[in-house]
Amino acid sequence: MMGHTLSERELISRIRRQANRTDQGLVKGIGDDCAVLRNAENRLSLITTDALVESVHFDISWHPPFLLGRKTASVNISDIAAMGGIPRFVLLAMAVPAVVESEWLTGFLDGFLSVLDEQGAVLIGGDTVRSTGPIVCSVTVLGEGDKDRILYRHSAQVGDLIWVSGTLGDAAAGLAMFSSIVRRPSALTEWPELCKAHLDPTAEVELGLLLAVSGLVHAMMDISDGLATDLAHICEESRVGAQVFAEQIPISDQLVAASRELAVLPLDWALRGGEDYHLLFTASSTVGERLEKLVYEKMGKAIYCVGRIVEGNGVALFNSGKSQEIAFGGFDHFARHG
Amino acid sequence: MMGHTLSERELISRIRRQANRTDQGLVKGIGDDCAVLRNAENRLSLITTDALVESVHFDISWHPPFLLGRKTASVNISDIAAMGGIPRFVLLAMAVPAVVESEWLTGFLDGFLSVLDEQGAVLIGGDTVRSTGPIVCSVTVLGEGDKDRILYRHSAQVGDLIWVSGTLGDAAAGLAMFSSIVRRPSALTEWPELCKAHLDPTAEVELGLLLAVSGLVHAMMDISDGLATDLAHICEESRVGAQVFAEQIPISDQLVAASRELAVLPLDWALRGGEDYHLLFTASSTVGERLEKLVYEKMGKAIYCVGRIVEGNGVALFNSGKSQEIAFGGFDHFARHG
Repeated sequence: MMGHTLSERELISRIRRQANRTDQGLVKGIGDDCAVLRNAENRLSLITTDALVESVHFDISWHPPFLLGRKTASVNISDIAAMGGIPRFVLLAMAVPAVVESEWLTGFLDGFLSVLDEQGAVLIGGDTVRSTGPIVCSVTVLGEGDKDRILYRHSAQVGDLIWVSGTLGDAAAGLAMFSSIVRRPSALTEWPELCKAHLDPTAEVELGLLLAVSGLVHAMMDISDGLATDLAHICEESRVGAQVFAEQIPISDQLVAASRELAVLPLDWALRGGEDYHLLFTASSTVGERLEKLVYEKMGKAIYCVGRIVEGNGVALFNSGKSQEIAFGGFDHFARHG
Repeated sequence: MMGHTLSERELISRIRRQANRTDQGLVKGIGDDCAVLRNAENRLSLITTDALVESVHFDISWHPPFLLGRKTASVNISDIAAMGGIPRFVLLAMAVPAVVESEWLTGFLDGFLSVLDEQGAVLIGGDTVRSTGPIVCSVTVLGEGDKDRILYRHSAQVGDLIWVSGTLGDAAAGLAMFSSIVRRPSALTEWPELCKAHLDPTAEVELGLLLAVSGLVHAMMDISDGLATDLAHICEESRVGAQVFAEQIPISDQLVAASRELAVLPLDWALRGGEDYHLLFTASSTVGERLEKLVYEKMGKAIYCVGRIVEGNGVALFNSGKSQEIAFGGFDHFARHG
């Protein structure tokens, strides 16, 4: 692997400490040209990669480095959760300008590693290089799942109900709070749920695994780009359409309060805000109650039915008796005229 | 995965075409939250990640996009070759400023994919995001190897001979040609071998596999940071020392000619130039002839013995009867006073 700076040495020594974690699947961790992994029998490997760019995906002026490290790990692990897998191994490649202080890097790495520890995943490789521009973090996560229990986007069926695993729009509202009006540290205490949703989202690995193992779910993904866009992905891949009912969309009290303060429609944030990292899944309407009960009994958690899968294509929002196409960018149109 | 730009759509459509390649290990390629892989029995997985940053690792003013795409793939695949593995699956995450033309991106991607095709590897995922700064390419390569034939850095033994698989310093000389004096298109024709070494290095997958399967090699890595530094890594990991003999280091005729033109010591480029991506390996002195013969008969290629593994630590260069420590940055010192 390439590139050497002074701070890379510090980083690597911190990384190596965490990488001392043993794992039966890990033959060789950091320190050679590649990490070497032993394959688990009857399991499939899941792999995902994401790049996060400073001032495009995050703003270090208000995002504390520890929480940004946590978010960087969580949003990537969320892709593993979204298929019903568990995260196992992580690689982190960072391009960092020379002006970034080692204190910032240490905080970021501590946050990143804290999520890995919570999730039982191990950092097995990476690369830290100088950059002449913004901080760029590229994360690759390897996970695994039972070979008969992986949940894809392409398996939604006509007649399925559509579920989400948490209130929508909180992360977008949190971002709006930081970026448009508040910009004051007290925002963290005034809007704790919204701030947490934006700064430190949780990858729903436990729920994803529970749903996968239940055998009750057809299609699943995580909500990273907003319900409207992500549901459209499921529809495209499954060659079906979807109907979403506005009054069924779970919206938090804090979101409603924040929407009044910023004069935004709560539904706008909820449908296309993105970055909620809750799970979006479909299941036969006959198993709805069983699913709700299962998730509540195992995790003390509610899930919310927001619509149904229909023949055709696209995503239609039903609101106060009117329907409106909202797939992908479609909700922009709705927001202007709705 | 996150981030959407217009050019991402083009990119993804190109990527999907290449990703139509079938592979028995690939259950699901691009199009879901993760790629899904079926594990091969009795094989170990190899994984490596690298970030390349514009104006730190490459300069688009003289590096044609097709060749830069090739190099980006090759330098990452080289880490798989360095362990005796074969590359199987690749993920590419790119942060790209809006000003970069789609023609450039297309050229880069064509080059990147051409190497994957040559190596029999499949692109299974990625992420393209906007950047406010330099182009950053993060590549993750998954490979595999026979579980008893992976070659590590930590297995060098006292008494081993040290080998390299090609002339050293050519990439550094090619870079010097482009960056210091020449800066004219004719450099490509005047110094073809040096330019190729810098612009379009080859990952020595076939040789790495041959050496691994031979059972004759103890430790191996690729030469990305220069012989002095990379040999020091083998010494550290294996807890041994090394002696390198200046007159045995293979140096190309073009390097000698270029060194005269730029008034540089050829040995300086050869020992610490880096980016040659040849293989560096050690084997018992009793099998040296067998190794040379094996590589020549199977690949029509020469390998070069440049030194030997000794007790102790560090890397000592013997040159005209004098010896000098050259591990890691040590050769700077040598270059000033030698």
